[in-house]
Amino acid sequence: MKNLATLVAAAIVTSSFQVPAIAQETAPALTTAQAGAADRLIDAGLEDDLAWDILESLTTEVGPRLGGSPAEARARDWGVAKLKSLGFKNVRIETYEMPYWARVSESAGIVSPYPQPLAVTALGGSIATPEDGVTGEVVRFPTLLELQAAPETGLEGKIVFVDEPMARTQDGSGYGTAVAKRSQAAVEAGKRGALAALIRSAGTDSHRNPHTGGAVRGAGKTAVPAAALSNPDADQLARALERAKGPVTVNLNLQVETKETVVSGNVVGEIPGQTDEIIVIGGHLDSWDLGTGAIDDASGIAITTAAAKLVGDLRGKPKRTIRVVMWGAEEVGIHGGKAYAEAHKDEMDKHVLAAESDFGAGRVYRFDTRFAEEEVGKAKVFEGALRRLAVTPGNNMAFGGADIGATRDLGVPVVSLRQDGTDYFDLHHTPDDTLDKVDPEDLRQNVAAWAAFLYIASELDGDFGRLPVRGDGQ
Amino acid sequence: MKNLATLVAAAIVTSSFQVPAIAQETAPALTTAQAGAADRLIDAGLEDDLAWDILESLTTEVGPRLGGSPAEARARDWGVAKLKSLGFKNVRIETYEMPYWARVSESAGIVSPYPQPLAVTALGGSIATPEDGVTGEVVRFPTLLELQAAPETGLEGKIVFVDEPMARTQDGSGYGTAVAKRSQAAVEAGKRGALAALIRSAGTDSHRNPHTGGAVRGAGKTAVPAAALSNPDADQLARALERAKGPVTVNLNLQVETKETVVSGNVVGEIPGQTDEIIVIGGHLDSWDLGTGAIDDASGIAITTAAAKLVGDLRGKPKRTIRVVMWGAEEVGIHGGKAYAEAHKDEMDKHVLAAESDFGAGRVYRFDTRFAEEEVGKAKVFEGALRRLAVTPGNNMAFGGADIGATRDLGVPVVSLRQDGTDYFDLHHTPDDTLDKVDPEDLRQNVAAWAAFLYIASELDGDFGRLPVRGDGQ
Repeated sequence: MKNLATLVAAAIVTSSFQVPAIAQETAPALTTAQAGAADRLIDAGLEDDLAWDILESLTTEVGPRLGGSPAEARARDWGVAKLKSLGFKNVRIETYEMPYWARVSESAGIVSPYPQPLAVTALGGSIATPEDGVTGEVVRFPTLLELQAAPETGLEGKIVFVDEPMARTQDGSGYGTAVAKRSQAAVEAGKRGALAALIRSAGTDSHRNPHTGGAVRGAGKTAVPAAALSNPDADQLARALERAKGPVTVNLNLQVETKETVVSGNVVGEIPGQTDEIIVIGGHLDSWDLGTGAIDDASGIAITTAAAKLVGDLRGKPKRTIRVVMWGAEEVGIHGGKAYAEAHKDEMDKHVLAAESDFGAGRVYRFDTRFAEEEVGKAKVFEGALRRLAVTPGNNMAFGGADIGATRDLGVPVVSLRQDGTDYFDLHHTPDDTLDKVDPEDLRQNVAAWAAFLYIASELDGDFGRLPVRGDGQ
Repeated sequence: MKNLATLVAAAIVTSSFQVPAIAQETAPALTTAQAGAADRLIDAGLEDDLAWDILESLTTEVGPRLGGSPAEARARDWGVAKLKSLGFKNVRIETYEMPYWARVSESAGIVSPYPQPLAVTALGGSIATPEDGVTGEVVRFPTLLELQAAPETGLEGKIVFVDEPMARTQDGSGYGTAVAKRSQAAVEAGKRGALAALIRSAGTDSHRNPHTGGAVRGAGKTAVPAAALSNPDADQLARALERAKGPVTVNLNLQVETKETVVSGNVVGEIPGQTDEIIVIGGHLDSWDLGTGAIDDASGIAITTAAAKLVGDLRGKPKRTIRVVMWGAEEVGIHGGKAYAEAHKDEMDKHVLAAESDFGAGRVYRFDTRFAEEEVGKAKVFEGALRRLAVTPGNNMAFGGADIGATRDLGVPVVSLRQDGTDYFDLHHTPDDTLDKVDPEDLRQNVAAWAAFLYIASELDGDFGRLPVRGDGQ
């Protein structure tokens, strides 16, 4: 997941956990039969084994699946086969084109005065260094703000080191600041004539697995090669700077591969409804290349697919079509999410609601909506059903997910089933994002919450209004 | 540390935590002044900052320091300067020759049916693969025993995978079994015609940092290239084998460098005593190459040096000389420990007691001795002094430490200040063995326990007898 900064900003803006009084008065309710069905879906979700099987299958049989890579193409084939085998209809790949970036090799080390290797990983989109790397004196900035405040000269021939730490939070709000550092260090260093930028990983762990992530969106030509140090290596470099009597010199060598255009795609499957209205849900199929993407975002794929299957297994068609999308190439530019909105812009008026699961497999603890103001009372129906799963009512400022950002910007209401992310950034974008990190019971709680949400979203009388259209969805 | 298997076997053999009644009757006691001094040393140890400074200095300014490498030579220079700056006397390097082995590069991956990289590290002493690696079908053995029980043919062209897990224990007793797997897999696989051996790391964590360690001692010519998979990668390979309909093929590429003879050395410093009797203590200066060796064994160096300094700072000379040794090249064959015993064999009768700290920086929770039977009552004196640090009496089957094994075998009594190793094998021999893993308060408790032990060992009337001489100390 990315662009959590947006979410965080939204959460800060609104501190209200109450719906307006007028909305409460007009809030609809489920019928007794519907309430019973939602309850039984929660029971079934809490005993679900399908999500784990999907998660294990994708992370084992495909493994890492970088956006635009042959591995991501194998993941699409996997997705088509999986959705078909589960009985989804209209299963297809919707292709799009995108630029390609991949790491080839990466290494770094202190050259003097304390020669030793440093664990680094290239940030996504980084340019390569020359073949022998770059070697320069390290200049440390405790935060990105201090780098931004530095004069626009004086770093010629230097390697910038942005040592800003990241806060551990349940809601992921530490990530906004961390993303700023990750995405801007290369540009800010380049502006000032530096050779390269190193950042302390945007992560909360203390293992020697650096965190990758997108670096230089819209950066223009000043961006220099950029890499993340693992947190212990950032500690080490900071200590070396403290202990050394003179300059600390580092070598950084990043080699990357790029292609102007490759083909990627979204995998789509449906549980056809009685009407032409659509509820679109899913996760992103791609992962960073370092781990097997168990929490980011095979869990989201597994949770949403298993929840849709539970709803699809009920007697009779759902009222609305449930469309599951495995978005492609999210990590490297949200290509799949943007392509989906573009490809489906003519049927956006049929899209009643959108939601993405893309924050690991931690328990859902809060339900946020972004409904039209006049429909916000409907949140109460979901909140009531989810209460037994220890899900607390949230606000009407839901982010929704990176891949439905473009869809949301075309006016489609969204919800967020907010997950506990306390440990998420220990693993996020590292080699350590592997299956063993997922708790099967937490995964089941997610399936239960999503199944109940999805059922209600499909069956509830009336829709959730429309959001203001922003831009063109791009 | 290594050879813990010996320690574990000893712990299993004896379950007695009592000293014989006869020894209790003759047990000596500290004078009031001595008891007060021991107590004040504990107070000082609990406020000690020197051990942390030594630990930070060695791990930062030298970093990884593989036995026999240029980095280990820098560590010796560091050790000499550190001991001199702290006021130790007779500071010197005692050199010896040893064979050299170093990793150059290592990689592995599933080739089919689920192509993806696997995180591996070469086991110490492994031979190289051909330049393009070896590729073969994986044959999994749940334990070493099952590999050992397999017929001596039938694995031609295969890659053996020993998937045996390791138990998490406070006393490190899970390591004995794990070492057997690590040291014997390559030989057992080679005997049966296999191309290579992969083992599940001898470690208790779930991070993608494989655990290295010595592999092929006395293995002869049948040993094949051998590497450890991280625990998540071993899980992944096991799952791939379960899910694949046909064979799972893996490529393993290990490149190594060896030299017949290089020079290494032990760093020695002393606090001269009033007599020519010697108490020898220390830790090992080398580390594996992957981490900075904070827990293995810069902590041991720091704890014993800081404790000796505290005792040396008391008014007047200690009764016995306290000799601190930073043994070299322990991980790659206990070369320093053996060389020490050989170089000092003519003064072994002056060695009253030996002890090593080489199990990380976890709190000391038990005090074991290996005294002559008739002197075992003296353990009570130490036990009494250490009680306020929550150190419990142990038995008289102390291992002592790998580097004092050869000294012990020449008849010198030893003690073990047993440390809590519950988390030790999460980090041991991995890139994750870094400074941030050490708790400063635990480190201080170690210094306090070692200072009190050392003071009593130096001042107590009478010695600890002699142990049976075993072999020639080699």
